[in-house]
Amino acid sequence: LSIPPGRELVIAKDAMVEGVHYLSGDPPDTVARKLLRVNLSDLAAMGAEPLGYLTALALPPACDDPWLERFAAGLAADQAAFGLSLLGGDTVRTTGPTVLSLTILGTLPLGTALRRSAARPGDVVCVSGSLGEGALGLRVLTGALQAPPAVAARLIERYRLPQPRLALGHALRGIAHACMDVSDGLVGDLGHIARASQVGAVIETARVPLAVELRGLPGALDLALTGGDDYELLFTLPEPSLAMISPEVGVAVTPIGRVEPGAGVRVIDPDGTERRLRSASWTHF
Amino acid sequence: LSIPPGRELVIAKDAMVEGVHYLSGDPPDTVARKLLRVNLSDLAAMGAEPLGYLTALALPPACDDPWLERFAAGLAADQAAFGLSLLGGDTVRTTGPTVLSLTILGTLPLGTALRRSAARPGDVVCVSGSLGEGALGLRVLTGALQAPPAVAARLIERYRLPQPRLALGHALRGIAHACMDVSDGLVGDLGHIARASQVGAVIETARVPLAVELRGLPGALDLALTGGDDYELLFTLPEPSLAMISPEVGVAVTPIGRVEPGAGVRVIDPDGTERRLRSASWTHF
Repeated sequence: LSIPPGRELVIAKDAMVEGVHYLSGDPPDTVARKLLRVNLSDLAAMGAEPLGYLTALALPPACDDPWLERFAAGLAADQAAFGLSLLGGDTVRTTGPTVLSLTILGTLPLGTALRRSAARPGDVVCVSGSLGEGALGLRVLTGALQAPPAVAARLIERYRLPQPRLALGHALRGIAHACMDVSDGLVGDLGHIARASQVGAVIETARVPLAVELRGLPGALDLALTGGDDYELLFTLPEPSLAMISPEVGVAVTPIGRVEPGAGVRVIDPDGTERRLRSASWTHF
Repeated sequence: LSIPPGRELVIAKDAMVEGVHYLSGDPPDTVARKLLRVNLSDLAAMGAEPLGYLTALALPPACDDPWLERFAAGLAADQAAFGLSLLGGDTVRTTGPTVLSLTILGTLPLGTALRRSAARPGDVVCVSGSLGEGALGLRVLTGALQAPPAVAARLIERYRLPQPRLALGHALRGIAHACMDVSDGLVGDLGHIARASQVGAVIETARVPLAVELRGLPGALDLALTGGDDYELLFTLPEPSLAMISPEVGVAVTPIGRVEPGAGVRVIDPDGTERRLRSASWTHF
C-alpha cells in the first residue's frame, strides 16, 4: 500500500464475539456490516477517510457456505457504500462461538487526526444524533422490551446497523479538540476522554438527545447515558467553533455539557443535583 | 502513523485458535511470541521491516490476570528482539477457546515488495533452514513421538517459537522473483506460488533439507514436504542470483527444484518417479 504524500495512516482494530457483541440469530449480512461499521466508526472518530480493511474470522461449523455467502454479500454491500475494499486476512476454525475481528485503515492530512487526549477546560461537550436506540434495539431482540412493529424494526436496525459518522468526523478536523465514538455508553466514554486529556467533564441530563422512542420509558435516560451501541461521535470544542460545523454532515449535533478542570465525569439533573448511575459503562449482556 | 517518503506499507493479519494453532498447555509467553512471530514471518516473506502491530484477543475466563501477565511478558520480549511496538487493538471475552489475531505493519522502499505471483519458468526454487522440525515438535508435545530430552526440547522450541527470516527476506528484495513463508507445508505452499504465478514447479525430494532429527524416521520426508509450522522462506529466483544472497542472512538456503511452464507441483524421487502425497498441505490437527 502506498500512502499519498502529505497524508498519514490511521488504523483501528475491533473484535466482535457471537452472543456478546451480536446475537446468534442476527442475519449474517448485518453481522458483517456491523463488523465493518463499528470499525468505520473508529475512523470517523479520528476524522479519517477509509482506505481498506483486513479480517480475521474464527468460525464454528455452523458458519457453513450459505452463512459465509450472506456474510460476504453484507461486506460487499458496505464496501460499495463506504468506498473501501478487503485487503486480506485469515479465516480459521473454532469449536467455540464465532469471533470476528477487523482491522481498518484510513488516511488523513498529516497532523490532523482527532484524538481523545486534547480536550481543554471550557470546551463544550457535544454528541451527534440521538442516544439509546441501539441499546433499545437489543432489548427488543432479547424480548426484554415490547414495541409496535414499525418502532421495533427501526430500533433493531439501529442495533444491527450502526451509522458511522464519517462526514461529521471529516468536518471536525481542525475544529474539535477531542473526539471518540460512543460504543460502550456516553458517561463511560466521556470518562475516557477526561482521563486521556487530564480534565474533568460535566453532562446536563436535560440536554442529552433522547431517541423519540425512549421518552417516557422508565429508565430511559439511564439507558441513553450508559446503554452503549450508539456509535455516535462524542467531541469537545470551543463554543464559537460550533457554528463552523456544516449542516451538510447529515446528522444533528447537540451540546450536552462542558469540560472543566479536575478529573472524572459529573452528571447533573435539572434540579442541580448530581445523578448517581449504577454503572458508567455498558459491559454488553 | 507516518510512512517515511519513498517507502510503502505492507500489512498482514494471521489468527491463532487454542487447540488448533497452539496447544492449551503451551506457556502463555510462547503463545504470545508465536502469534507475533508468525506475523513477522509474513513480513519477512515480503522483504519488509517491522513497524508495529495491533492485537485482537478473545479470551475465556481461564485466561486470568496471571495468564495475561505472562502473555504480555512474551510480547514485550519479542517487541524488544524484533524492534516493533504494540499500536492498539481490542480485548474481548469469549465462552469458547482462546482466539488471538494480530495485524502487523511493515515498510519497505516503494515497489520492492516480494510477491507470490512473480515466479518465472527456469527459476530455481529455494527454501531456507530445514523443514519438518515444527511438525515434529507438535508430535512430541502430543505424545505421538518419543525423543531424547535434549532433542525433544529443541523440536518443541521450533514448534513454539518459529524464527521469522527477516534478514533473508530483506536480502531477497530485488533478487527473488516470488516469495512466501512455509506455514502450511512445503508442497501446498509452493502450489500457492505456482497458481499465483500461473506456472508449474518441480521439487526433487533428494534436495529437501531435512532436520537432522528427521533422518531415518519413518514418514520423515512426507512430514518435511507437508508437515507445516516451518515458517521458513520459500522463494524462486534465476540461478545466477543465488550467489548474490549474503551469507550474513544467518540461515542456510537450499535449492530444491525448479519453476517450469504449466501448472501444479510435481514431487520427484531420486529414481525419477513422481511421488504421491496423501495431502499436499497440513490442516493442523
